[in-house]
Amino acid sequence: MREAGSRRRAGGRAARLAERQARVDGGAVRPGLAGGAYRPLTESDMTAIYETALDLLEDIGMASAIPTFVEVVTAAGGRVDEHGRLRYPRSVVERAVETAAGGFTWHALDESKSLDVSADKVYFGTGGAALSVLDHETSRFRDSTLADLHDISRLYDTLEHLHFFVRPVVARELDDPYLLDINTVYATVAGTTKPVGSAYFSAEAVTDSVEMFDHILGRPGRFAERPFLLANNTFVVPPLRFAEESAEVLVAQVLAGMPVCLLSAGQAGATSPAALAGSLTQALAECLAGLTTVNLLAPGHPCVMGLWPFVSDLRTGAMSGGSGEEAVMNAAAAQLANWLGLPSGVAAGMSDSKLPDMQAGHEKALTVSLAGQAGANLVYESAGMLASILAFSLEAMVVDNDMLGAINRSIRGIEVTAETLSGEVIRQVVDGPGHFLGNDQTLALMQSEYTYPRVGDRLSPDDWIDAGAATAVDRANDYVVAALAEHHPAHIPPAVDAAIRDRFDIRLER
Amino acid sequence: MREAGSRRRAGGRAARLAERQARVDGGAVRPGLAGGAYRPLTESDMTAIYETALDLLEDIGMASAIPTFVEVVTAAGGRVDEHGRLRYPRSVVERAVETAAGGFTWHALDESKSLDVSADKVYFGTGGAALSVLDHETSRFRDSTLADLHDISRLYDTLEHLHFFVRPVVARELDDPYLLDINTVYATVAGTTKPVGSAYFSAEAVTDSVEMFDHILGRPGRFAERPFLLANNTFVVPPLRFAEESAEVLVAQVLAGMPVCLLSAGQAGATSPAALAGSLTQALAECLAGLTTVNLLAPGHPCVMGLWPFVSDLRTGAMSGGSGEEAVMNAAAAQLANWLGLPSGVAAGMSDSKLPDMQAGHEKALTVSLAGQAGANLVYESAGMLASILAFSLEAMVVDNDMLGAINRSIRGIEVTAETLSGEVIRQVVDGPGHFLGNDQTLALMQSEYTYPRVGDRLSPDDWIDAGAATAVDRANDYVVAALAEHHPAHIPPAVDAAIRDRFDIRLER
Repeated sequence: MREAGSRRRAGGRAARLAERQARVDGGAVRPGLAGGAYRPLTESDMTAIYETALDLLEDIGMASAIPTFVEVVTAAGGRVDEHGRLRYPRSVVERAVETAAGGFTWHALDESKSLDVSADKVYFGTGGAALSVLDHETSRFRDSTLADLHDISRLYDTLEHLHFFVRPVVARELDDPYLLDINTVYATVAGTTKPVGSAYFSAEAVTDSVEMFDHILGRPGRFAERPFLLANNTFVVPPLRFAEESAEVLVAQVLAGMPVCLLSAGQAGATSPAALAGSLTQALAECLAGLTTVNLLAPGHPCVMGLWPFVSDLRTGAMSGGSGEEAVMNAAAAQLANWLGLPSGVAAGMSDSKLPDMQAGHEKALTVSLAGQAGANLVYESAGMLASILAFSLEAMVVDNDMLGAINRSIRGIEVTAETLSGEVIRQVVDGPGHFLGNDQTLALMQSEYTYPRVGDRLSPDDWIDAGAATAVDRANDYVVAALAEHHPAHIPPAVDAAIRDRFDIRLER
Repeated sequence: MREAGSRRRAGGRAARLAERQARVDGGAVRPGLAGGAYRPLTESDMTAIYETALDLLEDIGMASAIPTFVEVVTAAGGRVDEHGRLRYPRSVVERAVETAAGGFTWHALDESKSLDVSADKVYFGTGGAALSVLDHETSRFRDSTLADLHDISRLYDTLEHLHFFVRPVVARELDDPYLLDINTVYATVAGTTKPVGSAYFSAEAVTDSVEMFDHILGRPGRFAERPFLLANNTFVVPPLRFAEESAEVLVAQVLAGMPVCLLSAGQAGATSPAALAGSLTQALAECLAGLTTVNLLAPGHPCVMGLWPFVSDLRTGAMSGGSGEEAVMNAAAAQLANWLGLPSGVAAGMSDSKLPDMQAGHEKALTVSLAGQAGANLVYESAGMLASILAFSLEAMVVDNDMLGAINRSIRGIEVTAETLSGEVIRQVVDGPGHFLGNDQTLALMQSEYTYPRVGDRLSPDDWIDAGAATAVDRANDYVVAALAEHHPAHIPPAVDAAIRDRFDIRLER
């Protein structure tokens, strides 16, 4: 339950309790469990941040607005000031917040895997644009490739606690923006039937890739009805300046009916204020500018508020993704967006470590657990990322999958009912065997109350030594090798694939 | 802020906001920041659990009560039933909860390091009784020794994010309970001037060690006035049965004026219900039995509610310390105790991994961050523990220290004030340089808003390779070797030490 309820959503508490009850019958975890039990900001904190963001947009506005943005915003009552900045009257922004989509379905090629992105529902996925992979055969860093991206997509397809896949690595061998975009979405989509996402450098590629998606879905116009690819769009260069090329791409995405995550990724102390509250405020202002503009272009278009308030290590200026400051800021960003009644997407699970080591583990778990507990709808970067998101590790993604299962279990929380309170069971045990082993309740709850790791080890020390004394990453490597050898999704029929390859310059080998 | 306030404490929200404000001026983190922003249980959940626990104590009661317990509880209105179980009328328990100490000072030999254990204040420390250490020279497991315990205490003394030290390893070479207890507290106390704790097997050792502590403090009776050692006491064998020997030791501890943590460590599905709510309920009932009894023996005696609801892997029956179920249960345990207005102490940071690897990192961070965010006063086991608390690693303790700093930073939260909202700073930057590097706010907040890791790496990949491509654990090993060579606390003067060694059979070499 929110402190004073969402600004727009009512009945969250009752819904959450009802849902918790339902979950008792449905296995230990599932996608879309309700977060929101962690609330780093108070109601008055959030009001102050929102009011300040509205002030910033009205009094300072955004630089470098493209003509399309100027057109729709001035038509709604905004203006371009004497410095060329596009000013957003607060009433225009408030109206956008009130009327924007409070949720949407992120479709999957396998419709049973679609996500209802709304309320406090939490989903875990990847994201980012790493330039290197920690090669799972050589254990060395090298440039990431299109084949890596496809492999990672296939691996993702096998991991039960990952709910969406936004391309985490860049195909470094492709220089041309159009070619990169088209091949990126192809390699991504071909690897999995779960929801996917990407980012685009070319507006033309947006339009053309929708043609590809329609082909996969069977007829023209089908993607707009069932969009299964969400675009991350870094439409802003903080502070308070539009990124013109990305803005043009954003227009194409909106026109194509492609859901977008409006990303503001300022770095505190460099491109946003060092004060955490200020960094959040600026990110909110920027995302509100994007949201308002998109909603003026296409009212109700599915948008995710992508406040990604990044942290710099102020000693060096380098980005730091795994810090406590990052953890609390991303959680607060999710809380803010949810409080405004808008879908939230944050970046958590970034680690500054170069290796899938203990540091990586604790940095990931701290940031992801707080984001998830705060109710972030989309937790990007939650698996595989290392080196302050410069590098990706397949083994890390597998270990992170275990972590995400445990975090999701903690988000599910504790169902308190007459039955789960267990008064009668305790009485029976005290009167009887004196322990709960083999008790009916114990057997009944073994699968529905508990999650089990895939590569995480729970053996006794002796058994662990007998089993080879391996680390979680060693076991993850075994898993990666087996999954890549065995899992070859074939959801794109050969004829469709041939037609796509006929139409587009697809570089991924068959 | 609590959903409907603590049952006993008022003004928590105002106090927390005032405190947050104060923190802006005092460095990035400090011991005793206020948790409570994460609330896994609702008010009605907590009421239901408490009511059920009261029912259990009234209707089933506790087996194996020692004569002293029977005496004080029956004098207060309880009775021994036909099965020999000691029944606690709910009014007696409720009165104990109302009148018990809501907080206490855990003194340190260096009084500036004493802890105010109360309200939602969060402190991190060690705990447990590991039987092995992962040797920092050989990287192999071996039996833990008294020298290990002293080394770990000295290492703890150097780590800034660890606030209390309860003996985490057992001196395996000492078989005699009295000798083990006396040497354990000596090796612990001799290593640090920060707050310490232990556990006792011998009631005689409790009394005699207080004589040792009085010696260190300078005069007889001084320890009772300034108790700097807190005893963990596992006074219960779940379900609902007193551990008779520990109960006798508990009486000695209470009479000696030694603060106690009343530990109930049932394993869900084995010695407590598999339903998480039931496991919590049973642990609460057991700790309330302990609290009530201690308060009848010595009203207001400093007690920590040590609900340690452990999880079994139900496939094998083995304890599992690093799961999502463990994370949410310990957080809920802290929330429950705090809601009752009682000091809370939980176990988090336990990992099932045998090595300080990525699994250990994520299991520790998930469990500790949720316990801390829930406001656990004492987060035991938060550093160094591996192998489901069977083993201890010095390197892990050092890496965990970084993790605890980051978690503590996230607990501090985000101060939202006219200044931190940064509206003016953003305006200046937009009108001026276009970035926040070198801005007065950035420079001013570099130390007070941000924490920095000790062995955590934030270098660029190239710089990291140039620096030797080490893991966090490699760097922690360097730290351990240096700290053990250099840090030799000498707060026990030679004459006092000689007198102690004269009086007791101290096995630690000088």
